[in-house]
Amino acid sequence: MKFVSFTIDGVAMWGTVKGDVITALGQAGSAVPSLRSYLDCDPRPKLSELACGTFALGEVSLCPVIPKSDMIALAAVNYREGDVNPESAPQFPVLFLRLSSSQIGHEAPLIQPRESQKLDFEGELAVIIGKAGRYISRENAYDHVAGYAVYNDASVRDWQKHSHQFTAGKNFTGTGAFGPFMVTPDAVPALESGLALTTKVNGEIKQSTDTSKMIFDVPYLINYISTFAPLAPGDVIVTGTCTGFGITRNPPEFLRIGDVVEVEIDGIGRLRNTVQAAPDSN
Amino acid sequence: MKFVSFTIDGVAMWGTVKGDVITALGQAGSAVPSLRSYLDCDPRPKLSELACGTFALGEVSLCPVIPKSDMIALAAVNYREGDVNPESAPQFPVLFLRLSSSQIGHEAPLIQPRESQKLDFEGELAVIIGKAGRYISRENAYDHVAGYAVYNDASVRDWQKHSHQFTAGKNFTGTGAFGPFMVTPDAVPALESGLALTTKVNGEIKQSTDTSKMIFDVPYLINYISTFAPLAPGDVIVTGTCTGFGITRNPPEFLRIGDVVEVEIDGIGRLRNTVQAAPDSN
Repeated sequence: MKFVSFTIDGVAMWGTVKGDVITALGQAGSAVPSLRSYLDCDPRPKLSELACGTFALGEVSLCPVIPKSDMIALAAVNYREGDVNPESAPQFPVLFLRLSSSQIGHEAPLIQPRESQKLDFEGELAVIIGKAGRYISRENAYDHVAGYAVYNDASVRDWQKHSHQFTAGKNFTGTGAFGPFMVTPDAVPALESGLALTTKVNGEIKQSTDTSKMIFDVPYLINYISTFAPLAPGDVIVTGTCTGFGITRNPPEFLRIGDVVEVEIDGIGRLRNTVQAAPDSN
Repeated sequence: MKFVSFTIDGVAMWGTVKGDVITALGQAGSAVPSLRSYLDCDPRPKLSELACGTFALGEVSLCPVIPKSDMIALAAVNYREGDVNPESAPQFPVLFLRLSSSQIGHEAPLIQPRESQKLDFEGELAVIIGKAGRYISRENAYDHVAGYAVYNDASVRDWQKHSHQFTAGKNFTGTGAFGPFMVTPDAVPALESGLALTTKVNGEIKQSTDTSKMIFDVPYLINYISTFAPLAPGDVIVTGTCTGFGITRNPPEFLRIGDVVEVEIDGIGRLRNTVQAAPDSN
């Protein structure tokens, strides 16, 4: 099943998608006003009892899958390239946090800030938490997953390198693309089976790997993060990128106004955003 | 004026404090249910019209000043020590983010995680945002400040150094102490005048500086952060620490169960927390 968060005529709603049809399930004031609040229901109400209208997918604006999370934790580079020397493998994941305000949905403009010409892409798998927990074991980790989505952890490289902490360059408004849908685990093949993950810019493949090649896999990340912080429904873990993003290329390649970035994960979706200049007022 | 967030008999409320008396101004279901929602009101209602009871300060449990913020941005070391060579001064602040789940209020236990014996203290000034904005100029920055509080950015040093990003070690539950009150700017002398900031462990001074010695001052931080992300009422900027925290001492000193940490800023308050072991269930 696929869940979406969207706006239509300025009203924020959520629902399910089948083909090109959205069944709306709630909005502000509804019994269950958001996808995050639905994930937080225990027990969860029957979706058929929440249905409050249908829309064509093409007539709505998609939002980040979860428009507002308490935690958006991202891993940095997290894929094996070729053979790995176990002695040089990292011992722990590199983690940073994003603010919800930095995120956008599928087809929303990816914003090149006025302050930088070094906007870069990173195609990744996002995991949406569906069940609260602390000290979650690797064995039980998948019980806490509500679903998966595609993520472009677009990064403003010069601001990312203002200091040794990534915060500034990872939190510009309009840079964290998260969508198009949340696909529930029953509809997704096992990540360990190797779902192809590719990032294209203007149709050209720039990053290509598969989900079996993660260094720190989803159960590891859930266990590690939940050791220091509680996980809650609607929290998001973005699982890191592979080689091939712009600043590592020779010569480096940064995104320009009008570039189309597509991140696709087999069985989960294809996330597309076009680079736009920051509006004067933003 | 001093504002507080607190719980009594398990009910989360907010209000003002005068001497030892809290005037409660709201709780869930009230017209203005939280201090953050009050800061977000435009125009703000008269406090006298919100009053809904009084409590003795000693009978309530204080919460983090803002229990849940969309953004908690912290600067790392940010105080000049002696003369500064302008050529070696950092060009940009080092920033990281905390999760609301990591925070505690005044007199709440500071939690030593089961996983570490390297819990450390960092006494700091916290700034609470009262007015939304993006691209806020330094000149207008103070217009966006709702008030100040004291912060202990307690850090789990071994987890902080698991990778080059601080996230894990800065986000353990029960480590970010934020209180006791939010003091409004009209009641606080100018930061540039040099408010004494001291951190004591078991009564012994470990850190001592004053707010005139910040490298990146409050207007700078508000301008810098609001360049990449919008600021909203209830957001928190924690302005960094000075030398003297445990891991920099010779030999290094870490907090132990039962240690009492007090951070005090002249004119703003004194924040006290006692170190406890993590409960088995947490």
